[in-house]
Amino acid sequence: MEHIKPHSLGQNRRCPGCWKMLTVAMCMALVACLQAQELQGHVSVILLGATGDLAKKYLWQGLFQLYLDEVGKGYSFSFHGAALTSTKQGQEFITKVLESLSCPEDMVPRRCAELRGQFQQLSQYRRLRTNEDYMALSKDIEAQLEHKGLREAGRVFYFSVPPFAYAGIARSINSSCRPGPGAWLRVVLEKPFGHDHLSAQQLATELGSFFQEEEMYRVDHYLGKQAVAQILPFRDQNRQALDGLWNRHHVERVEIIMKETVDAGGRTSFYEEYGVIRDVLQNHLTEVLTLVAMELPYNVSSSEAVLQHKLQAFRALRGLQKGSAVLGQYQAYGEQVRREQQKPDSFHSLTPTFAGILVHVDNLRWEGVPFFLMSGKAMDERVGYVRILFRNQAYCAQNEKRWVADQSQCLPRQIVFYIGHGELGSPAVLVSRNLFRPSLPSESWKEVEGRPGLHLFGRPLSDYYAYSPVREQDAYSVLMSHIFHGRKDSFITTENLLASWVFWTPLLDSLAHEVPRLYPGGAESGHLLDFEFSGTQLRFSRQQLEQLVPGPGSAPKPSDFQVLRAKYRESPLISAWPEELIAKLADDIEATAVRAVRRFGEFHLALSGGSSPVPLLQQLATRHYGFPWAHTHLWLVDERCVPLRDPESNFQGLQAHLLQHVRVPHYNVHPMPVHLHQRLCAEEDRGAQMYASEISALVTNSSFDLVLLGMGTDGHTASLFPQSPAGLEGTQPVVLTRSPSKPHQRMSLSLPLINRARKVAVLVMGRLKREITMLVSRVGHEPKKWPISGVLPSSGQLVWYMDYEAFLG
Amino acid sequence: MEHIKPHSLGQNRRCPGCWKMLTVAMCMALVACLQAQELQGHVSVILLGATGDLAKKYLWQGLFQLYLDEVGKGYSFSFHGAALTSTKQGQEFITKVLESLSCPEDMVPRRCAELRGQFQQLSQYRRLRTNEDYMALSKDIEAQLEHKGLREAGRVFYFSVPPFAYAGIARSINSSCRPGPGAWLRVVLEKPFGHDHLSAQQLATELGSFFQEEEMYRVDHYLGKQAVAQILPFRDQNRQALDGLWNRHHVERVEIIMKETVDAGGRTSFYEEYGVIRDVLQNHLTEVLTLVAMELPYNVSSSEAVLQHKLQAFRALRGLQKGSAVLGQYQAYGEQVRREQQKPDSFHSLTPTFAGILVHVDNLRWEGVPFFLMSGKAMDERVGYVRILFRNQAYCAQNEKRWVADQSQCLPRQIVFYIGHGELGSPAVLVSRNLFRPSLPSESWKEVEGRPGLHLFGRPLSDYYAYSPVREQDAYSVLMSHIFHGRKDSFITTENLLASWVFWTPLLDSLAHEVPRLYPGGAESGHLLDFEFSGTQLRFSRQQLEQLVPGPGSAPKPSDFQVLRAKYRESPLISAWPEELIAKLADDIEATAVRAVRRFGEFHLALSGGSSPVPLLQQLATRHYGFPWAHTHLWLVDERCVPLRDPESNFQGLQAHLLQHVRVPHYNVHPMPVHLHQRLCAEEDRGAQMYASEISALVTNSSFDLVLLGMGTDGHTASLFPQSPAGLEGTQPVVLTRSPSKPHQRMSLSLPLINRARKVAVLVMGRLKREITMLVSRVGHEPKKWPISGVLPSSGQLVWYMDYEAFLG
Repeated sequence: MEHIKPHSLGQNRRCPGCWKMLTVAMCMALVACLQAQELQGHVSVILLGATGDLAKKYLWQGLFQLYLDEVGKGYSFSFHGAALTSTKQGQEFITKVLESLSCPEDMVPRRCAELRGQFQQLSQYRRLRTNEDYMALSKDIEAQLEHKGLREAGRVFYFSVPPFAYAGIARSINSSCRPGPGAWLRVVLEKPFGHDHLSAQQLATELGSFFQEEEMYRVDHYLGKQAVAQILPFRDQNRQALDGLWNRHHVERVEIIMKETVDAGGRTSFYEEYGVIRDVLQNHLTEVLTLVAMELPYNVSSSEAVLQHKLQAFRALRGLQKGSAVLGQYQAYGEQVRREQQKPDSFHSLTPTFAGILVHVDNLRWEGVPFFLMSGKAMDERVGYVRILFRNQAYCAQNEKRWVADQSQCLPRQIVFYIGHGELGSPAVLVSRNLFRPSLPSESWKEVEGRPGLHLFGRPLSDYYAYSPVREQDAYSVLMSHIFHGRKDSFITTENLLASWVFWTPLLDSLAHEVPRLYPGGAESGHLLDFEFSGTQLRFSRQQLEQLVPGPGSAPKPSDFQVLRAKYRESPLISAWPEELIAKLADDIEATAVRAVRRFGEFHLALSGGSSPVPLLQQLATRHYGFPWAHTHLWLVDERCVPLRDPESNFQGLQAHLLQHVRVPHYNVHPMPVHLHQRLCAEEDRGAQMYASEISALVTNSSFDLVLLGMGTDGHTASLFPQSPAGLEGTQPVVLTRSPSKPHQRMSLSLPLINRARKVAVLVMGRLKREITMLVSRVGHEPKKWPISGVLPSSGQLVWYMDYEAFLG
Repeated sequence: MEHIKPHSLGQNRRCPGCWKMLTVAMCMALVACLQAQELQGHVSVILLGATGDLAKKYLWQGLFQLYLDEVGKGYSFSFHGAALTSTKQGQEFITKVLESLSCPEDMVPRRCAELRGQFQQLSQYRRLRTNEDYMALSKDIEAQLEHKGLREAGRVFYFSVPPFAYAGIARSINSSCRPGPGAWLRVVLEKPFGHDHLSAQQLATELGSFFQEEEMYRVDHYLGKQAVAQILPFRDQNRQALDGLWNRHHVERVEIIMKETVDAGGRTSFYEEYGVIRDVLQNHLTEVLTLVAMELPYNVSSSEAVLQHKLQAFRALRGLQKGSAVLGQYQAYGEQVRREQQKPDSFHSLTPTFAGILVHVDNLRWEGVPFFLMSGKAMDERVGYVRILFRNQAYCAQNEKRWVADQSQCLPRQIVFYIGHGELGSPAVLVSRNLFRPSLPSESWKEVEGRPGLHLFGRPLSDYYAYSPVREQDAYSVLMSHIFHGRKDSFITTENLLASWVFWTPLLDSLAHEVPRLYPGGAESGHLLDFEFSGTQLRFSRQQLEQLVPGPGSAPKPSDFQVLRAKYRESPLISAWPEELIAKLADDIEATAVRAVRRFGEFHLALSGGSSPVPLLQQLATRHYGFPWAHTHLWLVDERCVPLRDPESNFQGLQAHLLQHVRVPHYNVHPMPVHLHQRLCAEEDRGAQMYASEISALVTNSSFDLVLLGMGTDGHTASLFPQSPAGLEGTQPVVLTRSPSKPHQRMSLSLPLINRARKVAVLVMGRLKREITMLVSRVGHEPKKWPISGVLPSSGQLVWYMDYEAFLG
């Protein structure tokens, strides 16, 4: 049943005339509700792992809260605490837990005791080990229903058990403990949901063989935190004020932070396997990120719309690289691991207990806005928050002493969803007074009372419109209620889960062998964990002494490279590991470009297709801010005879990996005309001649400033293959050729044209190139046999860029 | 002679081995200097306007300082105070002024009195009115030289006279008072140098007919301010630290500010003609801007290199528009003008006494960095500064309470050249301690002593490395010395002056009738003069009361619009004020696009050129985050037969205002092929046919989803002009046409093709369209006479968008 909450009526300020209609609607809902009382039926809640820590700390209390919320609204309940432990021990445990349950502050003690008594009566322990146990449970439920003449509404199975136990339990529930026809099944799952994309997928597939997607409720308890749960409603209820602000023109940065003071001591067996990224960032902080970044659905209470918009936000996330993260480990952690897991003194854990991540959302709304995600154990304070800081676009004409907090646009403007703890000590929503007065539902959020002396995010509390919940609620109580009411938007669907793992897994893989920075923990860490970005690279702000040469975390500079300089075919050779090689080549291209633009006002760059240049294009697109793109002309060295938008097209690669990200004027981009008059590379369309005349019209002397080539395992370069009848010599600058592999038809610059360039760079990467590299090193000028051997700029410079695998094997 | 200053030796820290060489060089210089003593000769300084305010306040003191600096270094001097006043009165005036001259603090009074006596003896008044007077002066100087057996070194004429007197004096000097052969002439000119580009050019041409460029020293006394004069040396001496910082990746903003507490009372006759932009921004603040923005010359002491780099900086300045400025006038100003100039009560001055300007420097170093220039009279404090604020790219992991000023990268990082006055009370250079420890010449700059409680730019003084001059010097004293030593980089060359006027004149013209915001003055102005930018537009942060509806801060939403809906030519008409109209049209286009992409997977939009769509394109580019650009095809409705990159090209407008800002895949952009085979719109190149076949290949049924048209005052639409032989009917989808205005040749979609569209929007704006709007409302279907009347989609929808001026006149 959908509740019509009184506050959603009160909110409708824009339509005072709606009151009458709403009053009528409310009456109808009340009638429906009264009728429902008789119809709702019985709900059985089975808490699996009922004697565990989580159950003891949160889940029983959450179930009790659910009971308090729902009692007398037409449902009957039974609560089954289940575990592997013996019935006697289990019952004792549960009895103890049930006695400690608390009621909301505003409930009179007598009423509380009465309801707790009822709840205790409805709750019992039950050992569930075998399939038969589940069958028996189902029979007992059915018997009880029949006995009491109740209709079954549904069953909730709450999995508070380790993931390895999931499959067995799921199988038993599916085969032997499903509710009868017409009643629902809801299984609630607790993290971890795998430790990477593959394992998460396997787990999801396995669970999917037992349950329908709509039956599964994956808990991320952060979504039950009141400040987090308020993000979408806040964005919705303040649409008008936020409309112009919630974008890259106005947001300077977003910080999504969860700091803990506790460390992992006592839990290292779990922690060693997961680390901070899997423990906090992949789930909690990522969920928050999507709530902030997603396009706002028209109807924020539609779970389906929210999910779709979340998935869209995931798709817009820029892929993380090693350089997107900084990692730390508190100093005592290693010793804790060795002690708790009986490891030898020589064992050094690489598990991070602190991580800072720089995320970019590549869409029109967020392009260029840094999202900082950070979490750590053994920090100086316990606090969680999401902070949206707006750009200062104002100049304030008076001396700063005269600035007034709610009027000056020069004081920081920010919106903070304060998740909890910290100096404020409670969840809150803060909006700088120089932004706007926010609208929040007044029956659930109240203005925070003044706290003189309290500063948050650089400003006194009085600078904010500050709201905290009227009644603070534990996340699990909130989520229990959502499960009961089938509100799926507070849970992680399979698609959502996998999208998150798709995002995080490559980073986790690339960081697997990274040594985290050690930090003392607490306030002693000082500025050791501060980090900053430069371009897309994150690094610690303070260099550590022992890491100064060359520092990890410090962006590599050309001079740091372990670059081998030698000769190859009598031309300069630059060799390095792939990442350094690409970085060096990108730097060299930029330097060439800057020089050319300074001298001639423009830079003509001809690029080869294929997969080798992709990381180069990415490097140029995302790290080279100084690149004079506005004055660069991009040409193709060769093209496959397919439509430009075909995924096989070389141009398509250029589009996806470079043009999307940089600003080259449209008319400076020169795709090869392989698709004229709706046909591909027809001789009579004279595409090659057209391209040649375009080159001769725009490129002085037809000398490109830089031509980037590759080398095939057969010695081909550009789309000039061995024995090619065209392009290896002669006067045609651009030629149609045939490739031995599909698509056969190609267009290519000719060797004579390539050799007019001021500079030619040949990029050769990977072990597969080892043999041809050896061979070509020995042959003379034999372009018919090995086209690459014909590359020899007549007055320009030739440089070979080879990674170690191609060059040294 | 070039002085080798001791401190320039001490600076050479990077080359300790150079000491020996330098010592030798120093000895040689000393020898040269001793020889020079006997050779230097006599210098005559003629101060024109010697009895004026400026002379009384600064210039005599500057000349005395020059004497103090140079006495005993081999020159002899005579100082001629000249004016139109009688010899007796003039001599009395001067005698009084000379008696009040002061010496530097560190000079013993006896020595001061002695030197002042000498200076008084060398100085005399002289009436200079006619050409004969100048001849006589020249003869007297020659006689004196002969009498004393002195060689003439040169003559300085300091023009402290109103500009109208320049020409006459210049003519007399040139014809009758030039020094003898081998001696130099230096004429020193004081602003104003014209009041716009034309007048400045005329004045420059006139002066150029009397003096060589190298003889003229145009004073901008700001260049003599110690903190301003330190900008280039600072950038030079801290090259290494600044190299990576002094650019758009790291600089958040630059503020160049001069605030005065005085008002213009008593000077309104001058001020009414000039206003704050001509008085302060065009000269002082612009000079400072170029010093900050210019590329740093290799040799900063080369006047020629500095000048060339300055001119280069001028060329990179983005042109100012009306929207680049906010103007104010203190409330008492109007009354002051009326009183001082006997104006009637009905007279209202529009002269601004306050201006805030947003400047952009369009080069790789500064693109996107806002430069705020601001100056005003009757402000809350007197202060001048240049502040370079760096971006915060860090996240600091500890609670802000634990941030340490010189370590935390999260605290503001800034460099301030504090020109003077304000709370600090003296010139200074401030560098945030979390940036770097700057290098300044220790014999002229010393560290500022602690001033507990003093906050500057958001931080306590102790957060800065702060330096102030060892000896504070008046700007005019500095400049007198530079004139004497021929250091031209402290003066404004003709090229520099004209470049500045080229930059400012269009803005001044466009603001001529702008009503400035009134402000009470002093601290009472509150936040009234705060301003902020959005895109390239500057506006006051606080709306004035009369501007309150629609609401400040809240972005207008379609529902807020006062949109008039009616019929025009039997089709829907939407009419509103221009801004609302554009917003409504942009919303409608987005809605159409979203619908088309949802239904067909793509959206085909054909856009007209010209100026009306520019605000529409800007609106779409910067406010429509949900626009499905990746699935949009952009077509041109018409094009001028010019190369695509020509500023006249319609495509160029599309590139500049839309494509630059959004991500449309390259192959979805379809410029008209007006430039094939290196020629424009040649029939035989069949460009129109090519475009038609491209449309037919990609656009289903050749029906665009939306065609945006305009309407000319002659009733033309697209590039279909009245009586056009092509395009008004027939089967050709795309045609070549002729326009009555240049460039005559055009390419255009034809009416039949336009009428196949699913939707056609006609945008008509401005009073000039009023007449044709009336006319077309009454005519039938007469496309030959009024092509617009032929727009009638066969099965699509036609909507007219007209602003009130076009529709209601």
